Amino acid sequence: MTSPFVPGTSIRVAGASDGPLAGLTFAAKDLFDVAGQPTGGGNPDWARDHPTPTRHAWAVERLLEAGATLIGKTITDEVSLGILGENPFEGTPLNPRAPDHVPGGSSAGSASAVAQALCDTALGTDSGGSVRVPASFCGLYGIRPTHGRLDLRGMLPQAPSFDTIGWFARDADTFARVSEVMLGEVIPAGLPTRLVIAVDAFGLADESTSAALQPLVRALASLMKEVREDLLAPPGLSIWSRAQRALQPYEAWLTFRDWIDRVNPRMQFNVASGLTLASPIPESERQWAGLMREEARARLRWLVPPGTILCMPTTPFPAPKKGLPFSVIGPLRARLNCLTSHGGLTGVSQVSVPGATVDGLPVGLSIVGGRGSDASLVAVARVLGARR
Amino acid sequence: MTSPFVPGTSIRVAGASDGPLAGLTFAAKDLFDVAGQPTGGGNPDWARDHPTPTRHAWAVERLLEAGATLIGKTITDEVSLGILGENPFEGTPLNPRAPDHVPGGSSAGSASAVAQALCDTALGTDSGGSVRVPASFCGLYGIRPTHGRLDLRGMLPQAPSFDTIGWFARDADTFARVSEVMLGEVIPAGLPTRLVIAVDAFGLADESTSAALQPLVRALASLMKEVREDLLAPPGLSIWSRAQRALQPYEAWLTFRDWIDRVNPRMQFNVASGLTLASPIPESERQWAGLMREEARARLRWLVPPGTILCMPTTPFPAPKKGLPFSVIGPLRARLNCLTSHGGLTGVSQVSVPGATVDGLPVGLSIVGGRGSDASLVAVARVLGARR
Repeated sequence: MTSPFVPGTSIRVAGASDGPLAGLTFAAKDLFDVAGQPTGGGNPDWARDHPTPTRHAWAVERLLEAGATLIGKTITDEVSLGILGENPFEGTPLNPRAPDHVPGGSSAGSASAVAQALCDTALGTDSGGSVRVPASFCGLYGIRPTHGRLDLRGMLPQAPSFDTIGWFARDADTFARVSEVMLGEVIPAGLPTRLVIAVDAFGLADESTSAALQPLVRALASLMKEVREDLLAPPGLSIWSRAQRALQPYEAWLTFRDWIDRVNPRMQFNVASGLTLASPIPESERQWAGLMREEARARLRWLVPPGTILCMPTTPFPAPKKGLPFSVIGPLRARLNCLTSHGGLTGVSQVSVPGATVDGLPVGLSIVGGRGSDASLVAVARVLGARR
Repeated sequence: MTSPFVPGTSIRVAGASDGPLAGLTFAAKDLFDVAGQPTGGGNPDWARDHPTPTRHAWAVERLLEAGATLIGKTITDEVSLGILGENPFEGTPLNPRAPDHVPGGSSAGSASAVAQALCDTALGTDSGGSVRVPASFCGLYGIRPTHGRLDLRGMLPQAPSFDTIGWFARDADTFARVSEVMLGEVIPAGLPTRLVIAVDAFGLADESTSAALQPLVRALASLMKEVREDLLAPPGLSIWSRAQRALQPYEAWLTFRDWIDRVNPRMQFNVASGLTLASPIPESERQWAGLMREEARARLRWLVPPGTILCMPTTPFPAPKKGLPFSVIGPLRARLNCLTSHGGLTGVSQVSVPGATVDGLPVGLSIVGGRGSDASLVAVARVLGARR
């Protein structure tokens, strides 16, 4: 059970005959509608309660119109609630760079398909890290664009104030070509000029991961006019994580509760448990988290104004082994969230690039910019990729 | 998906050639070990983490030695955590008396197999009502014996201070024959002489159910020397239910938490959710519940001393429709529990007999006696059955 594709599906939709992505292939996470195919959402009881879509999702349509050919739908953690990419109903997609390790999720199959070179790019979603984490674990380029920038029509929602569409590529050029189409914006030749090194984020990562990323940080710094160290989250990354854990799971509960009531779906224990624990998160906690979210947004506006980018480890460590017990996974997940929660909280843009390897396992370096900086971040990734 | 048998299994173990049950067939709930067969427990991730048993469970061995032939393993609600008999992994066994309605659970397949006449008797388990409820919903004889009386070896546990082995039959004579073997005690010819009618239990049931059971209550009363009305639970059946809901789910959590940690199993949402909500039940609540349990035991010792039995509706209503949403099922489950929680709390014996029909759907009348009264209750069931 290591295929990245949804079991039992066989999908091919040819892209437009000419277009900027003509000749490329792509896959779509099974949260995106493909006309005539059930959207499964990674859960055996989602599709039977939801009609088969008659239209493609906006993101799928966008790539098809640009000439890319859809070659499959990929496995996701159940209804995007997962960060490791272990789906017991459909299988754990192979991480070809680390076969005994998880691929990362929830866009697990999309990352796996690209990393295995089964397609050139793939659509994912990122609410709490679901593109960034698998990009890091599989050694890929991946983007979480500015929240609200892309059209989410035809995408199975999780937590609307966090949900974004992202994509993966193995090389920086393909990543830039696809990004240009998805963003509808030329990737600029010029780069930002100021770099913030997020010392709290490097401090929270494993020492071996932080150390392994230093050469790429230096390469990035050499492209900039100014480099300084600063905190990403002055109150603590764990405080931002806590605020995110009050808001996003509760929103997800609101998204899924009617379906759960109707269907009593089969789920992996931790997914059902997470939703159960989210439902009673008190208003007082969510109010506090909302205030902290505003403060985090203000922090990022100040920290990465136009022309400034921030770098940090995408994940605090490379991919954990597959099949670890709950009691081991829980603390790992909590640390992962400390390095991803700023994205959903603030809605800024983030690109993860292949950063280094630790004991042979890939780990990503992330470049974070303010809202709307997406093309600029892709430009940085392209230059870094060309220097490799 | 309405077979009562575990999908993919085909089991036949011949009983001893002579014995009191020679010629009878039986099935065993998939919580009982059958040598050489995986014990699935109704969950797709139980067997892969537990070795295939090399010995029969005590209860299976007992029936085989008495001459009955095992003809299958039956579907259970996941790890016995359910009361309706809807298992989305293996199917909902047919309730032949009410095909659009649930069979009741968790001994759903065992009740269904007997009700469909696919075998003469079947083993179930009853921790919180899992024999009594399907007996009521399927129109069968069923027993929850005195807690601690029978040997639970080879039975997948749920909540040890609540767990019992029970069995079903379509007719009172078969029920008595099987009970004699399982209890290792002759079913006496003489009957108890005093009857308590549990007015609180009849009051909690639907009016139509209580009314439908009156003819059988009168028939039962006519066998007795003394009849009086009294409360089963002076503090309230809902209070006993609350105490039971503090103790049993927490014990179940202790039983299953290591497996959950290792395996992160797939589960129906409500099963995972129930375990999640059980884990933080506070010590203070469990302490109170333990005291209430002692009071309930004292109440039953006083209420049904030797020679006295109590009657009550087994369930407050007949089988609900299949596939109802959570928000409808929740309150129904809560009322069901009000009529079953005395069993697990106090460990007394209870036999459910086919009581009446309401709109064509069966509902059971229960006879409750003190600890050790099992054979005596079966004797009452046999006489009532003969008078039908």
